[in-house]
Amino acid sequence: MIKKIDHIAIAVQNLESALETFRNVLGCAREAIRIEEVPSENVRVAFISIGETKIELLEPMSNESAIAKFLAKNGDGMHHIAFETDDIEKETERLRSVNINPLGLPKEGAGGKKIMFLHPKETNRVLLEFAQKQH
Amino acid sequence: MIKKIDHIAIAVQNLESALETFRNVLGCAREAIRIEEVPSENVRVAFISIGETKIELLEPMSNESAIAKFLAKNGDGMHHIAFETDDIEKETERLRSVNINPLGLPKEGAGGKKIMFLHPKETNRVLLEFAQKQH
Repeated sequence: MIKKIDHIAIAVQNLESALETFRNVLGCAREAIRIEEVPSENVRVAFISIGETKIELLEPMSNESAIAKFLAKNGDGMHHIAFETDDIEKETERLRSVNINPLGLPKEGAGGKKIMFLHPKETNRVLLEFAQKQH
Repeated sequence: MIKKIDHIAIAVQNLESALETFRNVLGCAREAIRIEEVPSENVRVAFISIGETKIELLEPMSNESAIAKFLAKNGDGMHHIAFETDDIEKETERLRSVNINPLGLPKEGAGGKKIMFLHPKETNRVLLEFAQKQH
């Protein structure tokens, strides 16, 4: 089951500068922000909490990262939307039953979550992520 | 003050087809969906509730709408993120005090809310909306 939107991700060239912009726009306290490196995805991430969800700013750590390739093609901008589920395996089955095929098997993402993506060609050119908290 | 993310908007050529896709992806009930026309913006909108926020699918009602122009340039895809505030006038003042200038004065949007936008050039090429419920 989908419980909520976990985060909305924005790809940025410069994490510090983008973070200052979004802090100014949202008027949020420093406590609402957390920065993390995700080596498996080659990105540095700033999370800004807003209500039950988060804005996630993504900066590539190398030219090999998918985010570096996105930025080279599009520049800064919205990258994906992530939904929180309580059972990612069950969601995978449910999606397959309606002919939507996740990209590969669930893997470990930021915050130690189990994550998977859907191909944007199946979903109106919006990249969607499913994420499950690990216990 | 920003209370939560009110919605994430996705521009689509065909509302019915996009709605079927997102219903399948999210596995949500018909009750979670509401469709509305917003003549002032020349769009038809489907709202899909997820937790405290919503996915908003936007279909242009004429070639004059900003959404029609976005689609002609980009095709389907993520269009903007909207934040709910309890006082849009106060937010406007706060934004100006940090040198971020809203696009025009607050106006009436979908659901009878007071809304305003920030120019994406100020915010990492992400179009942001502020929205206040009317009493």
